[in-house]
Amino acid sequence: MKLLTTPQEMQALALTWKGEGLTVGLVPTMGWFHEGHLSLMRKARAIADKVIVTLFVNPIQFAPTEDLDNYPHDLERDRSLAEAEGVDVLYAPDVDGMYPEDFKTSVRVSGLTTGLCGASRPGHFDGVTTVVAKLFNQTLPHVAVFGEKDFQQLAVIRQMVRDLDFPIEIIGHPIVREQSGLAMSSRNSYLKEDEMDAAHSLSKAIVSAKNLLKQDASHSPEQVKEEAARVIVSHPQCSIDYVEIVDRTSLQPCDRISPESMLVLAVKINQRIRLIDNSLLIT
Amino acid sequence: MKLLTTPQEMQALALTWKGEGLTVGLVPTMGWFHEGHLSLMRKARAIADKVIVTLFVNPIQFAPTEDLDNYPHDLERDRSLAEAEGVDVLYAPDVDGMYPEDFKTSVRVSGLTTGLCGASRPGHFDGVTTVVAKLFNQTLPHVAVFGEKDFQQLAVIRQMVRDLDFPIEIIGHPIVREQSGLAMSSRNSYLKEDEMDAAHSLSKAIVSAKNLLKQDASHSPEQVKEEAARVIVSHPQCSIDYVEIVDRTSLQPCDRISPESMLVLAVKINQRIRLIDNSLLIT
Repeated sequence: MKLLTTPQEMQALALTWKGEGLTVGLVPTMGWFHEGHLSLMRKARAIADKVIVTLFVNPIQFAPTEDLDNYPHDLERDRSLAEAEGVDVLYAPDVDGMYPEDFKTSVRVSGLTTGLCGASRPGHFDGVTTVVAKLFNQTLPHVAVFGEKDFQQLAVIRQMVRDLDFPIEIIGHPIVREQSGLAMSSRNSYLKEDEMDAAHSLSKAIVSAKNLLKQDASHSPEQVKEEAARVIVSHPQCSIDYVEIVDRTSLQPCDRISPESMLVLAVKINQRIRLIDNSLLIT
Repeated sequence: MKLLTTPQEMQALALTWKGEGLTVGLVPTMGWFHEGHLSLMRKARAIADKVIVTLFVNPIQFAPTEDLDNYPHDLERDRSLAEAEGVDVLYAPDVDGMYPEDFKTSVRVSGLTTGLCGASRPGHFDGVTTVVAKLFNQTLPHVAVFGEKDFQQLAVIRQMVRDLDFPIEIIGHPIVREQSGLAMSSRNSYLKEDEMDAAHSLSKAIVSAKNLLKQDASHSPEQVKEEAARVIVSHPQCSIDYVEIVDRTSLQPCDRISPESMLVLAVKINQRIRLIDNSLLIT
């Protein structure tokens, strides 16, 4: 496995592969790999000739109050994990290479980015779409695999790819969970032992909401959200950022529950750690 | 020469050419071809295996008060002219194909876009960068050739390409002028016979400014701008939008005249027709 660190060498290799008619699968990440990331790499490995995993903690998608400086990282650990999955290139550019001093361009998706995570993280998705557009042009993939945990990010990227006509297939890959049900996240590493119960409330809220609908499919979105919120706020360490039921594509609130309805959650643990989770309600 | 009209068929052909290892030269236009456009096509023809000319009058780069509805067009005329230049594809998508109803994405370059044409045409360059990003992804060129008449557009596109890492070389091609000195423009077709003298004031102002500097290279930017403005406002049909001397790359005003200094002009003729022109001052 190659480790590349500059946009120039990454793009040069990507162009060589294009010239050789090889297909490329991309997995964009912020590193600190867990089983969720590894499952994305396996998916890309299964469908493309060459697999590129990018590792870049993108400063422009973090607000000044957020956890950019504390975001967990260990390049050597990630390097071994990616290599073991048969990844061809781990691409870990530095911030100056990605954003030179006179950087002036942004890519913005409107509408989809204003609610949910966009409401509590203003500017976040502009940072995401800008860096993903750059990574697409640096790595020139045929397919790119994103985790469904960041469901809003996935919807926003699908929209950007469609609107800007990137010749790239976007694949969403299911959430990987701990045995406890906790959705895997690099941010779980922030959790202290006495915060684990609170962290589990997100997946428990999803189970509880689904059970409510299994008992009686006619429950309204309001009733289902109330049930999910009840499970979460029963933990005094939890504060709700949002509990919503939205259409999986438009991200607009659902008037009634359908197979397209997704329960989406963002919860702060001790005002310190922001976790998200989601699930279709009828599966 | 092929005429293509949908993003899907354009991108499919571009991907086929990529797979065959052919180089592609792109000439983006709004049609109503004149010798300026044809010179861009010849440039692309000379350096690439395949030449794509796009013809799209992009609504999102026009303000509601501007000349979108009157912009001159004649597809059959343009088709013959492009074919005669050995163009491989004339790509003329329709508005619905480029901007489907749920279109939500924009590409913005800050800084470079606020002054000059950006000041009098708010939102114009966002429309330009968004459509050019789309056209790049639809046609996947190795090089793209733009006219230097739209000097600010060229600077903005260079910045976008650098910032978003498009694997595309941008070539600026010199202004083509009528024998009278008038910079060729599709918008010249709006000029009535009694407006031609006024239209000629832009190129005459450039000649006059250069002559002033030939006499004495120590003239200040203010003195040179005054001379250019004097020539223009001597025509009662002319009103100045801007007369500036800027660095050719940063587009920032020059403190003193250097080989990088560009005189840039935008003038309205009878408040109806907005013409632009530019030139380096020391050549």
